[in-house]
Amino acid sequence: MTDFFKNISPVKYEGPESRNPLAYRHYNKDEIVAGKRMEDHIRPAVAYWHTFAAEGGDPFGGRTFERPWYDKGMEGAKLKADVAFEFFDLLDIPFFCFHDVDIAPEGKTLAESNRNVREIGEIFARKMETSRTRLLWGTANLFSNRRYMAGAATNPDPEVFAYAAGQVKNVLELTHELGGANYVLWGGREGYETLLNTKVGQEADQMARFLHLVIDHAKKIGFNGTILIEPKPQEPSKHQYDYDVATVYGFLQRYGLEKEVKCNIEVGHAFLAGHSFEHELAIASSLGMLGSVDANRNDLQSGWDTDQFPNNPGEMALAFYYILKQGGLGSGGFNFDAKVRRQSLDPADLLYGHIGGLDVLARGLKAAAALIEDGEFDRLLDERYAGWQQKGASAMLKGERTLEEIAQWVEAENINPQPRSGRQEYLENLVNRFV
Amino acid sequence: MTDFFKNISPVKYEGPESRNPLAYRHYNKDEIVAGKRMEDHIRPAVAYWHTFAAEGGDPFGGRTFERPWYDKGMEGAKLKADVAFEFFDLLDIPFFCFHDVDIAPEGKTLAESNRNVREIGEIFARKMETSRTRLLWGTANLFSNRRYMAGAATNPDPEVFAYAAGQVKNVLELTHELGGANYVLWGGREGYETLLNTKVGQEADQMARFLHLVIDHAKKIGFNGTILIEPKPQEPSKHQYDYDVATVYGFLQRYGLEKEVKCNIEVGHAFLAGHSFEHELAIASSLGMLGSVDANRNDLQSGWDTDQFPNNPGEMALAFYYILKQGGLGSGGFNFDAKVRRQSLDPADLLYGHIGGLDVLARGLKAAAALIEDGEFDRLLDERYAGWQQKGASAMLKGERTLEEIAQWVEAENINPQPRSGRQEYLENLVNRFV
Amino acid sequence: MTDFFKNISPVKYEGPESRNPLAYRHYNKDEIVAGKRMEDHIRPAVAYWHTFAAEGGDPFGGRTFERPWYDKGMEGAKLKADVAFEFFDLLDIPFFCFHDVDIAPEGKTLAESNRNVREIGEIFARKMETSRTRLLWGTANLFSNRRYMAGAATNPDPEVFAYAAGQVKNVLELTHELGGANYVLWGGREGYETLLNTKVGQEADQMARFLHLVIDHAKKIGFNGTILIEPKPQEPSKHQYDYDVATVYGFLQRYGLEKEVKCNIEVGHAFLAGHSFEHELAIASSLGMLGSVDANRNDLQSGWDTDQFPNNPGEMALAFYYILKQGGLGSGGFNFDAKVRRQSLDPADLLYGHIGGLDVLARGLKAAAALIEDGEFDRLLDERYAGWQQKGASAMLKGERTLEEIAQWVEAENINPQPRSGRQEYLENLVNRFV
Amino acid sequence: MTDFFKNISPVKYEGPESRNPLAYRHYNKDEIVAGKRMEDHIRPAVAYWHTFAAEGGDPFGGRTFERPWYDKGMEGAKLKADVAFEFFDLLDIPFFCFHDVDIAPEGKTLAESNRNVREIGEIFARKMETSRTRLLWGTANLFSNRRYMAGAATNPDPEVFAYAAGQVKNVLELTHELGGANYVLWGGREGYETLLNTKVGQEADQMARFLHLVIDHAKKIGFNGTILIEPKPQEPSKHQYDYDVATVYGFLQRYGLEKEVKCNIEVGHAFLAGHSFEHELAIASSLGMLGSVDANRNDLQSGWDTDQFPNNPGEMALAFYYILKQGGLGSGGFNFDAKVRRQSLDPADLLYGHIGGLDVLARGLKAAAALIEDGEFDRLLDERYAGWQQKGASAMLKGERTLEEIAQWVEAENINPQPRSGRQEYLENLVNRFV
Repeated sequence: MTDFFKNISPVKYEGPESRNPLAYRHYNKDEIVAGKRMEDHIRPAVAYWHTFAAEGGDPFGGRTFERPWYDKGMEGAKLKADVAFEFFDLLDIPFFCFHDVDIAPEGKTLAESNRNVREIGEIFARKMETSRTRLLWGTANLFSNRRYMAGAATNPDPEVFAYAAGQVKNVLELTHELGGANYVLWGGREGYETLLNTKVGQEADQMARFLHLVIDHAKKIGFNGTILIEPKPQEPSKHQYDYDVATVYGFLQRYGLEKEVKCNIEVGHAFLAGHSFEHELAIASSLGMLGSVDANRNDLQSGWDTDQFPNNPGEMALAFYYILKQGGLGSGGFNFDAKVRRQSLDPADLLYGHIGGLDVLARGLKAAAALIEDGEFDRLLDERYAGWQQKGASAMLKGERTLEEIAQWVEAENINPQPRSGRQEYLENLVNRFV
Repeated sequence: MTDFFKNISPVKYEGPESRNPLAYRHYNKDEIVAGKRMEDHIRPAVAYWHTFAAEGGDPFGGRTFERPWYDKGMEGAKLKADVAFEFFDLLDIPFFCFHDVDIAPEGKTLAESNRNVREIGEIFARKMETSRTRLLWGTANLFSNRRYMAGAATNPDPEVFAYAAGQVKNVLELTHELGGANYVLWGGREGYETLLNTKVGQEADQMARFLHLVIDHAKKIGFNGTILIEPKPQEPSKHQYDYDVATVYGFLQRYGLEKEVKCNIEVGHAFLAGHSFEHELAIASSLGMLGSVDANRNDLQSGWDTDQFPNNPGEMALAFYYILKQGGLGSGGFNFDAKVRRQSLDPADLLYGHIGGLDVLARGLKAAAALIEDGEFDRLLDERYAGWQQKGASAMLKGERTLEEIAQWVEAENINPQPRSGRQEYLENLVNRFV
Repeated sequence: MTDFFKNISPVKYEGPESRNPLAYRHYNKDEIVAGKRMEDHIRPAVAYWHTFAAEGGDPFGGRTFERPWYDKGMEGAKLKADVAFEFFDLLDIPFFCFHDVDIAPEGKTLAESNRNVREIGEIFARKMETSRTRLLWGTANLFSNRRYMAGAATNPDPEVFAYAAGQVKNVLELTHELGGANYVLWGGREGYETLLNTKVGQEADQMARFLHLVIDHAKKIGFNGTILIEPKPQEPSKHQYDYDVATVYGFLQRYGLEKEVKCNIEVGHAFLAGHSFEHELAIASSLGMLGSVDANRNDLQSGWDTDQFPNNPGEMALAFYYILKQGGLGSGGFNFDAKVRRQSLDPADLLYGHIGGLDVLARGLKAAAALIEDGEFDRLLDERYAGWQQKGASAMLKGERTLEEIAQWVEAENINPQPRSGRQEYLENLVNRFV
Repeated sequence: MTDFFKNISPVKYEGPESRNPLAYRHYNKDEIVAGKRMEDHIRPAVAYWHTFAAEGGDPFGGRTFERPWYDKGMEGAKLKADVAFEFFDLLDIPFFCFHDVDIAPEGKTLAESNRNVREIGEIFARKMETSRTRLLWGTANLFSNRRYMAGAATNPDPEVFAYAAGQVKNVLELTHELGGANYVLWGGREGYETLLNTKVGQEADQMARFLHLVIDHAKKIGFNGTILIEPKPQEPSKHQYDYDVATVYGFLQRYGLEKEVKCNIEVGHAFLAGHSFEHELAIASSLGMLGSVDANRNDLQSGWDTDQFPNNPGEMALAFYYILKQGGLGSGGFNFDAKVRRQSLDPADLLYGHIGGLDVLARGLKAAAALIEDGEFDRLLDERYAGWQQKGASAMLKGERTLEEIAQWVEAENINPQPRSGRQEYLENLVNRFV
């Protein structure tokens, strides 16, 4: 045991009335909601990067946190791994996620970097023998090192593409070996800083090729987890090709990959793309693309990615509505892609962030389950579209009527459709009944 | 002749030094640029709605303009048509565009509305015998009437879908008869106000069916023009399904329509979607989807569609770069989807708006042509990606290498790619040399 | 009794478990919270314009609502007044607010318009003898008529300034006679569409003069209510001079008016100005300027004023925190500056909007009261700044130390301040305990 | 001579036709524009931080630049100073600006840090004996070190306030000794991350006290330069107290400082605050607060501060219009608060950025001077407000009429003001004639 979290006891569910800031008030992992344990719905995960590797820097200031593992190479990486699993145990959380560079220092060569990653990977494997925490997903960081400044798969330099391939192969295999449930690609530099030096068509082809390589290798090694793309519209790049769910879907279809890949949807990324979180979930779900979630929130007044912990139960209720309606996230889960603020210096702050986030998710889940169980909401939705079940309408939708036939019918019968109330306020009140 | 533009003489090119506010200073229709008449590059069009039908209202105030054709039914519509063609002649502009409801008042039934539209259409046909102005595109207004408040093709009520079909059939046929070069669909209400009452999957199917009906009918009647979708992210709807070019592309592919339809890209819509105008053009062009342009600008500080006339030659230069690189817009053109401000009450203001806009387009066109002719810009772009022409890189891109092979090569050869300057400032200065 | 709300019974508090959509579930007017009746904290008001005068139009479509009083001149205005008071009674709401043009049609001259307004004002007075609903505030609409297109007080034409003065005098006097608790000025056109035709210094002087005139007249007629300015950054104007609370404060000081006027703060306007609602309340309260509230919400993805009913109890809890800490709103209240969506066609929708809004306000109020009563939140805040109570620090803040003395002390004593956790996540969880 | 800029010759004016990327095409320092040398209008400055201290990092990636002075303590600082003055000479630029931490490494104590700064300051003084480059302004960095994470002047810990005072005293004195023309305060952390842990009233008092201390010390040491506050709405903080010009003005008045301080207005900060650059200049100028400019631009699609070099001559023309109309910037100038992109790795890129920026400023200046000389623009503006010069209107504006008198006049005379065209498109075209 390290002494990083000294004097902090394991976090337990104590119910809504608890005043203990280090207890769950709503997240009760074994409680049955909509026929399943709460934990099995949410499948929450700690993000290794924000929680253990982040330093509290921002564009106008450097490191604010003080962690005993900083600047200590592999020795530090091992200490960090010890603290990480202690943290998972304290939170009693079933999953974590990582990038290669979060867990081990980069070496002088790809080979050395990859060896470092595998060495820590072995430590993880040993720890997972005694910890109950599992790997939700792994990913390779293809954006921090200066070699990736102009993209990884989409770099004008094919050597960078190749280097990235070498990094992904390593993390994909490690993810597989650690029993990871998914593998994620987030393309923070797959985009452009200026169109003036960019061939968007060429770069799309490169990105598609890279994705094919990854999918083929996953199959080859027997990795059955889901391959996930994480959309984000911008930041760090001015424009990122995986702008939002709809854009990713178009890209995947173009290259014949829409059956192979799903989306990992992040709250803050949806917001930056001009969407609500529930919008991205609804669209993804309707396209069969809703695979996993990066749970966080964006500051509503900031134009960049703030990666704060979720704190709006109403927003999460709408999210869980779409998730429950599609029968859950499958191999996916809720990764807390969230970091404590750079002024939150204390080890306990890491716990407060996750506890608050889990409680908000639990409230959202319970509200969505109650909304669905109540049934009125879904019934009203079905009623609104009921006309399309009628014979003539159904024929029209199936393509059994020409434009001319339809037009003639309207003119001949003098069809004059009368608008009906959309009942938005009624529906908002109905949802609020459960939040 | 009406007396609406009394005392205003035809607008002519007088060169950059002219102080005549009713002369072109840069737009010189017959000047040859990059091998073609300026007019044949730009193919500019007046928008009937903003120029003749708009009233100067905004969400906090009513009509400010006073036009002799307001509130006068078919008689007013005829006067409006007279003034419109006088305006086209004054500007010496080769094209115009219209919605059905811009040109004729709605009747009590679809049949009556359609008859009104055709009656004015016949007047147009006669006027086009003596005017040189042609129809760039026609479109049906499926968003202003309250029957469309919850969408046209995507309405929960199939009768509304049918009514819309009847309207489109009429305008598509009129467009064809008038020799229109394109037909446009803009789905301002094809989206949602709240997800709470919306089935996005069902509505996507409806929208696709509607588009199929239109395409089939166009073929049936022998209309060879381009069918264009005009993306917009929102407004009036909270979310619109044709969010941006990438989203439209994904939608078209999903329903097998990506070969049948192109995009009509509007400057202000690109901006509202979080993109630059040149981004949308570059993406569309790379997808073979760049069909036509709605030229305007958005106020940079306003969060809604301001539809102002273009006034940034640098922005238009980048636009024309992509257009020239793809060999022009084909049947498309530059429709001024722009309106004079609601305080611009005078008939002459309508001319100032179009003159200023045309001059800005002309400056952009000439700058882009010079940039391309100079050649350095394109050469630098090719150089940046030259590595991908090499044999190994090319093989990698074609899929002739596996992830494993690539990774092994990087590790074995200790590949360590060195970043090169992206030269953004150099390129910006280079472009500015021509603007 | 009109039959507009036929079959709808008065709305009553039925508690959180009620499934009656026409009952309050949280708003219980006589419940004592923090020592006062809930109604006396909130002082809720119906906005005449959104509820009775709005027509469901938007920039891309016309009227969607059908109300029997539309287009009926003074007769319609009287019917509208009847329905309004029936609505107030149904909701059992203590206040309403109006503009002159909401309640009566404009005449051909100012005199006629003013007479129309006074005629309806007399009807209001009679109704208020039997209804318990009172006037929270009145205001003059100085933005809808085309004469105000370039501003009212800030118009380049002094006659427009004068006309506006004539309108305000009438409404201010009527507000006084009806026992109105406040008078509001919102300057939707007091700003500019383009700087190119605007003298901002001249217009600021005009605006200040206008405000002086109003304040002087209020004193002269014995009106003791609060004069309120309502900040908004833009829309309809590109820029509005009353951008936000801080801007209004600077303007008032400049013209010696900061003691005479307070702010009426609208949720959606705060958001459009780049602020959170609680920010504007906190700033206004710290400046002694927090007078009243326009309760609504803005769509988080729309760049214009959506004026939706509030539905986030957490946001309202933070609002009530600042209100309770300053001892309440005094003569102010919560005006629902919110409209049902243009698809919400039914009379019942007007009730759903207000019921949902009131329940959200009630939840916010109760949460804020509990947070304050708990005390930990305020104690932590005081602790954070406790250092400034110490003698040396206090002297420094009072100006009893020079820069030189302070610098010498730091260097001599080698002062090296150590950062302490800002505890944001802890505080967010603490607040969430009460929401 | 270092060899950092090896093979690069001094940059000279070669005229618009030059194809030399290392020449000025529009910036011709000795050319007389509006009666003054171009250089004396613009007074351009290089920013030490972006040009020499920045490393190319962003929130998702580390250092991309490789400079021989990185990580080398005082030795590196001296090399950096050598390169800086070589750069100033190459550009032939009359001014530079710096923060203390840009020029010298921080020590273990304030005393040591300050000594380091003064040691480099002495080197600057010696270099300025042979270089013609002068100091436009100095400033202290009160935001990067973790001690300032919760603010400097507004920190809850008075020791941080004191430490900041010690830093400012040192830089203010050095600025004075180096003959600096101004002293700037930018409060990147003077604001809050969350209102939940913030007393905005207390922090405002602290900020005002700090400013008083600085002003008093400036007077004491005989510094006659202008004290400038640089507004920014947010970033790094969620909210910054110096939000925009209007907010700063209100703050200064509140604490009796509006005569002592002016604004340094940054293009990108104006944009982030929801304003155009010209808006901030117009407002500041109308308040007598326009002191200096931070020339750059913000990416129009990015929600954070991108600090790119200016490249829109039209925007700069509007800026110079307000500057020329107020008779110039006085002691202020145009500091390039702009950095080359993180992919712009080469030393030459630093030159391209500044050359392009200066050429854009020169084009803007010349356009504004021509617009003013032409006279029509100003004449139209005066005409628009001419009514206020008339006797009755003037009396009304001076406060010689009561609300009652004005209202009676309107009613009695049946005043019915008729709107006149705002002529926005005409004016835009007129401005474009000169850009």
